[in-house]
Amino acid sequence: MNYQTSGIYTDFYQLAMAQSYFLTRQHQQKVAFDYFFRTLPYQGGYVIFAGLADVLKSIQHLHFSAEEIDYLREYGFKEHFLKHLENFRFTGNISAPKEGDVVFPNEPILHVEGTMLETQLVETMLLNTLNFQSLIATKAARIKSVSKDKILSEFGLRRAQGAGGVMATRAAIIGGFDSTSNVYAAKKYNLKASGTMAHSYIQMHEDEQVAFRDFAQTNPDNCILLVDTYDTLKSGVPNAITIAKEMEKKGHRLQAIRLDSGDLSYLARKSRKMLDQAGLPYVKIAASNQLDEFVVRSLMQQEAAIDIFGIGTTLVTGQPDAALGGVYKLVMANGKPRIKISENIRKTTLPGNKQVYRLLEEDGTFLGADAVAQYEEGFPSRITDPYDDRKYMACNTYDKEALLQPVMKAGEILNLIEDVTTIQRYAAQRLAQLPPEYKRFENPHIYKVGISDKTLEIRHQLREKYLWFREA
Amino acid sequence: MNYQTSGIYTDFYQLAMAQSYFLTRQHQQKVAFDYFFRTLPYQGGYVIFAGLADVLKSIQHLHFSAEEIDYLREYGFKEHFLKHLENFRFTGNISAPKEGDVVFPNEPILHVEGTMLETQLVETMLLNTLNFQSLIATKAARIKSVSKDKILSEFGLRRAQGAGGVMATRAAIIGGFDSTSNVYAAKKYNLKASGTMAHSYIQMHEDEQVAFRDFAQTNPDNCILLVDTYDTLKSGVPNAITIAKEMEKKGHRLQAIRLDSGDLSYLARKSRKMLDQAGLPYVKIAASNQLDEFVVRSLMQQEAAIDIFGIGTTLVTGQPDAALGGVYKLVMANGKPRIKISENIRKTTLPGNKQVYRLLEEDGTFLGADAVAQYEEGFPSRITDPYDDRKYMACNTYDKEALLQPVMKAGEILNLIEDVTTIQRYAAQRLAQLPPEYKRFENPHIYKVGISDKTLEIRHQLREKYLWFREA
Repeated sequence: MNYQTSGIYTDFYQLAMAQSYFLTRQHQQKVAFDYFFRTLPYQGGYVIFAGLADVLKSIQHLHFSAEEIDYLREYGFKEHFLKHLENFRFTGNISAPKEGDVVFPNEPILHVEGTMLETQLVETMLLNTLNFQSLIATKAARIKSVSKDKILSEFGLRRAQGAGGVMATRAAIIGGFDSTSNVYAAKKYNLKASGTMAHSYIQMHEDEQVAFRDFAQTNPDNCILLVDTYDTLKSGVPNAITIAKEMEKKGHRLQAIRLDSGDLSYLARKSRKMLDQAGLPYVKIAASNQLDEFVVRSLMQQEAAIDIFGIGTTLVTGQPDAALGGVYKLVMANGKPRIKISENIRKTTLPGNKQVYRLLEEDGTFLGADAVAQYEEGFPSRITDPYDDRKYMACNTYDKEALLQPVMKAGEILNLIEDVTTIQRYAAQRLAQLPPEYKRFENPHIYKVGISDKTLEIRHQLREKYLWFREA
Repeated sequence: MNYQTSGIYTDFYQLAMAQSYFLTRQHQQKVAFDYFFRTLPYQGGYVIFAGLADVLKSIQHLHFSAEEIDYLREYGFKEHFLKHLENFRFTGNISAPKEGDVVFPNEPILHVEGTMLETQLVETMLLNTLNFQSLIATKAARIKSVSKDKILSEFGLRRAQGAGGVMATRAAIIGGFDSTSNVYAAKKYNLKASGTMAHSYIQMHEDEQVAFRDFAQTNPDNCILLVDTYDTLKSGVPNAITIAKEMEKKGHRLQAIRLDSGDLSYLARKSRKMLDQAGLPYVKIAASNQLDEFVVRSLMQQEAAIDIFGIGTTLVTGQPDAALGGVYKLVMANGKPRIKISENIRKTTLPGNKQVYRLLEEDGTFLGADAVAQYEEGFPSRITDPYDDRKYMACNTYDKEALLQPVMKAGEILNLIEDVTTIQRYAAQRLAQLPPEYKRFENPHIYKVGISDKTLEIRHQLREKYLWFREA
């Protein structure tokens, strides 16, 4: 079973609802869903949209194997429904921003059109993939935003949430990381894995210097020595210097030393000095140990002599948030807009097929507002705060981009952008267009997402329709 | 590629070190590693050990496919090393507590013996699996500890960290959950998936009552109606009552209604009263929406009329921790104990092949202390606090259990316990043996892990050996 294309990689209720639609002959009715999130992770100012290529490839190949059909039979699903699942293929349309774009709360990020049955059967996998990859790409981008030209290395697999570590690697690279230790993910996503050495390698040998020598001789072109097994400054660094000199004689160069404990800023400064005095200015210093964007920012502010940051746990698990709460909500059925009401207006959905327009300054900088409009109305002349209709702004004088572009038509992927490095570059470009006040860690400026008059009106009508219960 | 048995589901450095051992002809040397963690998650008092069966099956089948070997060739690994990997099989021995046991910081939980090469190549997968499943099983057990005889339902896949959601389901059941929505995980781990309905199902229909009727007619034996799409008390519950009465006439029973927003305690109380007054005392009430162990505890204290708790995000991502920091450290090489020193004594490892003895009261209750001793010394007469040698206790008068038992010998699994329900029962039994003061959420009593005199002595000797650098 490959989970990414398995029809049963889903919640049971999707299948129960699908059967219900099938038995009541509603399964072919046309509907549309939006994927969006309501709250920014990390109390930050943006999200990097990631996971799109994986989702599209999964949807295109999603099916139920004979074994899976047999498994569902045990639950008592009807034979003619199972027969229908046997031939299931997604045949709908999807539009989305380019993967790597910056996106904001309450705006549609994926718009999925198709039959009731097919749109429901892709929901869980789609949420699972986009929520997680976007969370991690955003975390990576935050770390990248404070680490300037330093090298960022991901090595979180051992602390990742099971196989979540594979997608985490992809997302980390999209957000700006340079390398990964994860060989499996590297193969899957066409990246290059790299690595250093573990404490066990040193411990395995009776003597640290002998361990370093063995490692250097067997990894002459890619040698990073871990110097903190016994005593960083009195043992590790002096031994590394000895080995670096030996490597020079053979025409090789020690690539770096790695610090993995203690006060990284202090140890890096002392190590740098020792390396420089030994005539080894080219030997880089890598640092790891419970790093996150705040520790990296602090090290940068101290001008710590660190060239490479190795980051694991906080990155690949998206600590402290651990989840992005993206949802997938019905917005159209049988040609009519649909709504999900909540006592909390912030949880009431935006009905209808919509487009998202990003407003731009003349130089291409983001203005700080996206406009959500009904698809057929085109670019709206003004937008209103969806939760406070006394707040609105004219927007027709600004340059704009339509964010949602077709990425799947009748079940076939259009213009797939799969190369992770290409997506990484796009994310960097879009982040560069976002002004700094939206990127700071403390109380970032709130990017506005406004809705068109038409969207406001449809939402109002639908709320009136269903809220009569309250007044009755 | 199946990640669970893939040799490249690992960190690059494991392969680099493996090649280095191979090229320096050290790869067949015998070593031993311990898996343990240093800090309890959730500021709690225990961890439920989970993931063992998955790890053992992975290790038994771990191999490098021809495609993976070709992939590694691109990195420049040597041909005779790749040839060696082609035939790689784990041939070592592993001992562990039974899966589902409660375990504590700094004691060995898995003891792995084998060659340098093989013990290193299983590390990343082992950590990835045990860290995550133990984190989630522990979270589930915390929720179970405050929910008494209520039904607990896991439905977190959409917010899970990618495919981590699959193992999360297994771990949630081990920790005490009754059911899951995850069909893929249910198939994989021989569980039964179940589910309710989504808001979209209601929205898809013009009318809530029509939606309920359709669903009831197509799911007569397993019908749970979601009542909060428009207005819980004025629309959802009255419509559910109408449908329940219609179901009765056809000889069926509405299983439950589900509340997914608003004040769950208030809505459950009002809904219960409406259902009872309608002569439907058997219709259960399910509640969901951002629940965790603290919200469940609060609802239980309010005696909320809730029969089923549905929990997703916080459970399957182990919020707020998101990771258990378990490590895998070399403790023996070539017949000699090994140590990893740290300036922080709490990060210095415990050398040697060890056994863990759990001390018991006469009635089988856990005394609140585990004894870590060198394997060959047997049960120690006293144990000492590993971080404060002024604190020790005599322990030879207590009953005891040796926790680490062989689970793999020469690469073959011994007495595999794979059935998740069996493991769940064992976890419940062991938690019942743990006194309540270790299970409370606020400032739980600290379970003691002490070390034998012999272990203390070996650690002291090794620290002296390597710490001379400091005094030099």
